[in-house]
Amino acid sequence: MPTFDKRPIGVFDSGLGGLTVVRALARVMPEEDLVYLGDTARVPYGNKSRETVVRFSTENVLFLLRQGVKMIVVACHTASSYALPFLERHFKLPILGVIEPGVETAIRWTQTGRVGVIGTQATVSSGAYLRTFKRMAPKIKVVQVACPLFVPLVEEGWCTGPLVDQVAERYLKPLKRARIDTLILGCTHYPLLKQTVGRVLGSHVRLVDSAQQVAIKAKELLITQGLARPNGLPTACFNGRFFVTDEPHHFEKMAKRFLGWCPRPILKADVSTT
Amino acid sequence: MPTFDKRPIGVFDSGLGGLTVVRALARVMPEEDLVYLGDTARVPYGNKSRETVVRFSTENVLFLLRQGVKMIVVACHTASSYALPFLERHFKLPILGVIEPGVETAIRWTQTGRVGVIGTQATVSSGAYLRTFKRMAPKIKVVQVACPLFVPLVEEGWCTGPLVDQVAERYLKPLKRARIDTLILGCTHYPLLKQTVGRVLGSHVRLVDSAQQVAIKAKELLITQGLARPNGLPTACFNGRFFVTDEPHHFEKMAKRFLGWCPRPILKADVSTT
Repeated sequence: MPTFDKRPIGVFDSGLGGLTVVRALARVMPEEDLVYLGDTARVPYGNKSRETVVRFSTENVLFLLRQGVKMIVVACHTASSYALPFLERHFKLPILGVIEPGVETAIRWTQTGRVGVIGTQATVSSGAYLRTFKRMAPKIKVVQVACPLFVPLVEEGWCTGPLVDQVAERYLKPLKRARIDTLILGCTHYPLLKQTVGRVLGSHVRLVDSAQQVAIKAKELLITQGLARPNGLPTACFNGRFFVTDEPHHFEKMAKRFLGWCPRPILKADVSTT
Repeated sequence: MPTFDKRPIGVFDSGLGGLTVVRALARVMPEEDLVYLGDTARVPYGNKSRETVVRFSTENVLFLLRQGVKMIVVACHTASSYALPFLERHFKLPILGVIEPGVETAIRWTQTGRVGVIGTQATVSSGAYLRTFKRMAPKIKVVQVACPLFVPLVEEGWCTGPLVDQVAERYLKPLKRARIDTLILGCTHYPLLKQTVGRVLGSHVRLVDSAQQVAIKAKELLITQGLARPNGLPTACFNGRFFVTDEPHHFEKMAKRFLGWCPRPILKADVSTT
């Protein structure tokens, strides 16, 4: 008889952008249960220091452990960049970040060996993407650009139009100059700007959205470690619990934009009490 | 013999924007000592809920009380909007916000009785400006607009140029239509956009920056309550201590932009431990 594990998968993000990862997980593993934590009281992480992002991420992991999760997916690129090595070192359960799956895809896709990465200031400063490329495909040329205005633009709902075009033109200029053929969207919000970024860079540049990739990797990992839940059981229907650290009612509308449907109820989490 | 009080004045803000208030206080009362707290680990407050802003503000007050302050100035407009009534109700020491001083100035300045207010989403949603005008000058017509992109634009250093012009045109349209003659800059970052906002609205609109006003009010309050430090003493030279909740080294450059000089050292504050 195969082993299986009914405990939920844990996912955390600095806010709600990580719900795109939940969407991908639900598609790839509808039979699994899931607990999501969005640290909306302290969002964003992208302008914070390594020390602070590590502290917040550790508190998020401890909260998810109290929910009895069997694996954790760090959906936030900033947290993956700054905190993943620390979390992997100190916690026993499997923890996956979004950097490596994105890099793997870019390596598979690039033909010219010139890859771009866009992300928050923290993600870029961390050097996590550069290190991962160096380890996995040292010959690839990587050009990084921080795009701090992209997240506020998405949250304002200004994803297309002349204004966001101008911002994108300005940020993406070094990537055009470097003649990349693949771009990693290194922040959960950026897939909502796919259309604009795609137009500015041209159709010859392929855009890597890490959500799908990390979901596939999560499934492989659960299977190889004997932690997966058998699909085909009567319980095989996606079941998620959603927590945020700020007041939940604020986030129902925004959550729908990232998840595709409205998670209800969204509950309040106190991450500071262990 | 007059009474006087050597304890410092406390100032807190969600981040570093409140240093403009420190600058004004230092000009108006160079003889006073000062402790500043910027909650840079949890910045911004403008997209958070009332409950969360009240909780963070209370923690900030408790930290400043542990530093032995005699009065607190809430330099953040969002915290002033959401948390000031709670803080005034529960703490004994005098606490001043930035809403009322701005409103008083606007009432003095307006000739047509049509005043605009721009601020974060939270400041606008709180209704704090509307309530204050209603109480102090119920006949004045007030038009509010939330400008969530202004803070990220300032922090990116894009304070002038065609891009910020377009954003300003878009946000300020309702204020032009309402033919205001006075505008309250209801966020610590907005004075850095004075030039752009002034050009979009035209020179007939006067811009209220609350920092100067709150400093004057703070001085009056210290004098009437017998808490002021006599100027003319040998100690009469501005002396400030600066704390942030994220790692300090991140903020030296940014701090200079708001304060005009570089505060050193900037220390790390743990506001969660009482």
